[in-house]
Amino acid sequence: MKAVVLLSGGLDSATCLARAVEKYGNENVVALNAYYGQKHAKEMECAENIARHYGVRYLKMDLKEVMKYSDCTLLEGNGAIDKRSYAEQMEDSNTVSTYVPFRNGVLLSVAAAIALSVGANEVWYGAHQDDAAGSVYPDCSKKFADYMNEAIYEGSGRRVKLCAPFIDINKAGVVKEGLRLSVPYEMTWSCYEGGDKPCGRCGTCIDRIKAFKANGKEDPLCYE
Amino acid sequence: MKAVVLLSGGLDSATCLARAVEKYGNENVVALNAYYGQKHAKEMECAENIARHYGVRYLKMDLKEVMKYSDCTLLEGNGAIDKRSYAEQMEDSNTVSTYVPFRNGVLLSVAAAIALSVGANEVWYGAHQDDAAGSVYPDCSKKFADYMNEAIYEGSGRRVKLCAPFIDINKAGVVKEGLRLSVPYEMTWSCYEGGDKPCGRCGTCIDRIKAFKANGKEDPLCYE
Repeated sequence: MKAVVLLSGGLDSATCLARAVEKYGNENVVALNAYYGQKHAKEMECAENIARHYGVRYLKMDLKEVMKYSDCTLLEGNGAIDKRSYAEQMEDSNTVSTYVPFRNGVLLSVAAAIALSVGANEVWYGAHQDDAAGSVYPDCSKKFADYMNEAIYEGSGRRVKLCAPFIDINKAGVVKEGLRLSVPYEMTWSCYEGGDKPCGRCGTCIDRIKAFKANGKEDPLCYE
Repeated sequence: MKAVVLLSGGLDSATCLARAVEKYGNENVVALNAYYGQKHAKEMECAENIARHYGVRYLKMDLKEVMKYSDCTLLEGNGAIDKRSYAEQMEDSNTVSTYVPFRNGVLLSVAAAIALSVGANEVWYGAHQDDAAGSVYPDCSKKFADYMNEAIYEGSGRRVKLCAPFIDINKAGVVKEGLRLSVPYEMTWSCYEGGDKPCGRCGTCIDRIKAFKANGKEDPLCYE
């Protein structure tokens, strides 16, 4: 086994999985999906389908308990997602309502534990520049990824490394990579809401549509 | 709230909790205990009693799923604990059978998520020099703690720091601190086995007895 790839079912992580499979072959890649109390299961269903598409081993992890004290609005039992822009939210409270506390730190640590357990020596995740912009999602920054890589490397007895192939490119660059790799983007889900079709209006829908446009393509998803 | 302290129920983490309570008062400290599939519940029962002794809020976290692919011998369903010395095990396989894969990375990340959720800005843990010696437990090393601190700080949006008060002292030094703080060591459990009384023969029993002797004291626990 070579790599454990965090797979949420969104566009970025699907592209990340495609890259890992291109490099190592599907028999050497494990896809890891985490449930941590999300309000809807859409993304997770997509993750399972994408893993099946690529023929990789698929592991699910229930981490709901870890986030049960959080008031993040992506999580079950908490209020509605803040419709204000990230900039307005940041100015108001120095964070955004959709930041899941240290989520990527928790997921990467869990992935490192699993990598050690299944004999893989890399953990991959699909964070990119746009996620980290304005410190909105600090656990997507290059600085965080660099330190986390060192922590995983040292703490695993120098057996596991972190690989973040998109940390220096933006979402449009991720889509460019994915188009080259023929990622089945119609199988992915990015929308914060859990409707039958993606809403096309929330922050993550807008970013996604833009990233396709920047590549002169249309998003294959059918929006509301 | 000020600090989330990892509390296993062993000697080191009990002393760590005592230090945090000394610094911030019991009303500002949360003790966090994790179940990750350990073969016996002795340490966890001790953790709850120690938290009650100090009058701090006590949280339990079930992380068994994370470690279910591991062959670590401390975990339920796996073979007997290797009786050979750490040195012999390291020479044979470059790890020891009691190393739980990236355990401290997982626990510290989870603690950071909880710190953000409950409004604390420090995560404490009781790793010390002896644990890291010979790279037996790489997730107890100073290097790991330093990188993990940076990863937590950056990934939390610069709101949470890691505090490892014993990282530069050995277990005898920890006991010295604990004696000064009157830690109720009779309430702690260190033994790898889950008997009625600690065995007095496993690696961690021997280390513990030695650490008391180095302070001219006897361990208050009654051994087999």
